[in-house]
Amino acid sequence: MRVTIVGCGAVGSLFAANLAQLDDVEVWAFDLDREHVAAINEHGLRLSGAGEIVGKLSATTDAAELPPSDFGIVATKCMHTAAAIEATAGAFANGSVCSVQNGVGNEEALAQHVERVIRGTTFPAGRVVEPGHVQWDVKGDTTIGPFEPSPAPTADVEQLADACTRGGMPTQAVADARGPQWRKLIFNAATNPIGALTGLTHGRVVEDAGLRRLVSQLVDEGKAVAAAQGIELDADPEELIDHAARPDVAYDHKASMLQDVEARRPTEIDYLNGGIARFGREQSVPTPMNDAVTALIKGLEASWRQ
Amino acid sequence: MRVTIVGCGAVGSLFAANLAQLDDVEVWAFDLDREHVAAINEHGLRLSGAGEIVGKLSATTDAAELPPSDFGIVATKCMHTAAAIEATAGAFANGSVCSVQNGVGNEEALAQHVERVIRGTTFPAGRVVEPGHVQWDVKGDTTIGPFEPSPAPTADVEQLADACTRGGMPTQAVADARGPQWRKLIFNAATNPIGALTGLTHGRVVEDAGLRRLVSQLVDEGKAVAAAQGIELDADPEELIDHAARPDVAYDHKASMLQDVEARRPTEIDYLNGGIARFGREQSVPTPMNDAVTALIKGLEASWRQ
Repeated sequence: MRVTIVGCGAVGSLFAANLAQLDDVEVWAFDLDREHVAAINEHGLRLSGAGEIVGKLSATTDAAELPPSDFGIVATKCMHTAAAIEATAGAFANGSVCSVQNGVGNEEALAQHVERVIRGTTFPAGRVVEPGHVQWDVKGDTTIGPFEPSPAPTADVEQLADACTRGGMPTQAVADARGPQWRKLIFNAATNPIGALTGLTHGRVVEDAGLRRLVSQLVDEGKAVAAAQGIELDADPEELIDHAARPDVAYDHKASMLQDVEARRPTEIDYLNGGIARFGREQSVPTPMNDAVTALIKGLEASWRQ
Repeated sequence: MRVTIVGCGAVGSLFAANLAQLDDVEVWAFDLDREHVAAINEHGLRLSGAGEIVGKLSATTDAAELPPSDFGIVATKCMHTAAAIEATAGAFANGSVCSVQNGVGNEEALAQHVERVIRGTTFPAGRVVEPGHVQWDVKGDTTIGPFEPSPAPTADVEQLADACTRGGMPTQAVADARGPQWRKLIFNAATNPIGALTGLTHGRVVEDAGLRRLVSQLVDEGKAVAAAQGIELDADPEELIDHAARPDVAYDHKASMLQDVEARRPTEIDYLNGGIARFGREQSVPTPMNDAVTALIKGLEASWRQ
């Protein structure tokens, strides 16, 4: 089978390099970073940290070069999903395409261009340290399931989960992948923008009583929007939030959105709090705190253009 | 009559220099900035901009040097009110003391140390450009009235208003000064922290639909807390907000709290949104947005100590 990774940044690279360990999987990667693509083609894709491997794969910046694939794994930042799948959809005319991105709304964007879509949520994390080389910071599980309005066949979901697991990325195929996705979404939406607006690490947000109250208000709104859609969370995001604040877990972690803000990069706010608010409006569930936080982060982004 | 200005920064200096124009008023100033105090004593206190005057007055950094005064005008930042009045209260054993500060809660702090308190709200603004020299940016009105739980006599309120007006600072004595104070409070609380959190000028906050909605939510909470106390606003803060956003008024103005944040100075959040929330709790009026904004600004201040 052939798998094409769309967006070969940190998370895409973890899937690409691990899948490339398998004899029965041919891996391609599409990415717009010319140096990263050239390095991958020349020396392979190297992971270090939580795992030390090199994956042999074919990378390209030109979507027209992609051969037909059985599977796509989309791992771009949320705001690039539409453009990325529009460019690469031709390679998935007979394939199933899975999002392993943050936030909500990505599968909807994929379904505009491909027929068989897989909803996915992944916890492993890393960062690109140099072209062709990714630091693997955290191992973790991935959960995938058919995207309800435009589903991939169950057999495809299971085949992809099996390949990822055998390659080194433990992945579970489920009938309804919305629970894990919304748990991660609610966790991220309740903590990322608070870190980004205050400059505080995860642990310092959680130990501040006023901010912890705001975090819970964001969580409660997210839970209400999930419940209105009939989504059953697989665990309480509140527990995840307190667990991550432990000194031995992620007390000193700067939320990715804080890192974006410090580097003045566009954030994923539209797919986190903005996504919860959008689904809330569809379900007539009010989300005033998520709306407020979305407006503040978008205002902050706008100030960089002032 | 003798008037002592407590806190001779920008606003305090406007009162000090203008009152010093009057033959029948002797002006003293208490301030902790040694260079400013020395310059005032040597060359007088100079205002330029909206008015060009030099006021002759006696300034000191030592509260024990202050002679007994008929009036005090307190113009420190809100977080310094308690310490400033504790130090200077002896000079006002037979005098009336008026706050012309931002926010709410200052009169309550004054009443802990002096008997006759005047509630005041002032709109003139400026900035200290160098020791002994203040730029007078904006002329404007002042409204004063007895502080209800610990009131100065009406005759005192009227005498102080008359002196300020004759000196060049138009001041109205009223029976209930809470309306103008809460209008300014609500205006500041609805706009200052939004500018501070996003980095946007007043006009850009107002023209952003998402932020404008948040501003109105903050205004609505403030109005509800004012109404619960029986306070009648003298004008709608919403009008003031839209008016100030005009290009010929204050479109490009950076809120003072944004200036504080950029300089990493403590903000007055506890006396603005925090004050609305505190009075809201007393009145059992919920203020979730003011609570959230207070927590975010205090979190931002905490990040500087990280």
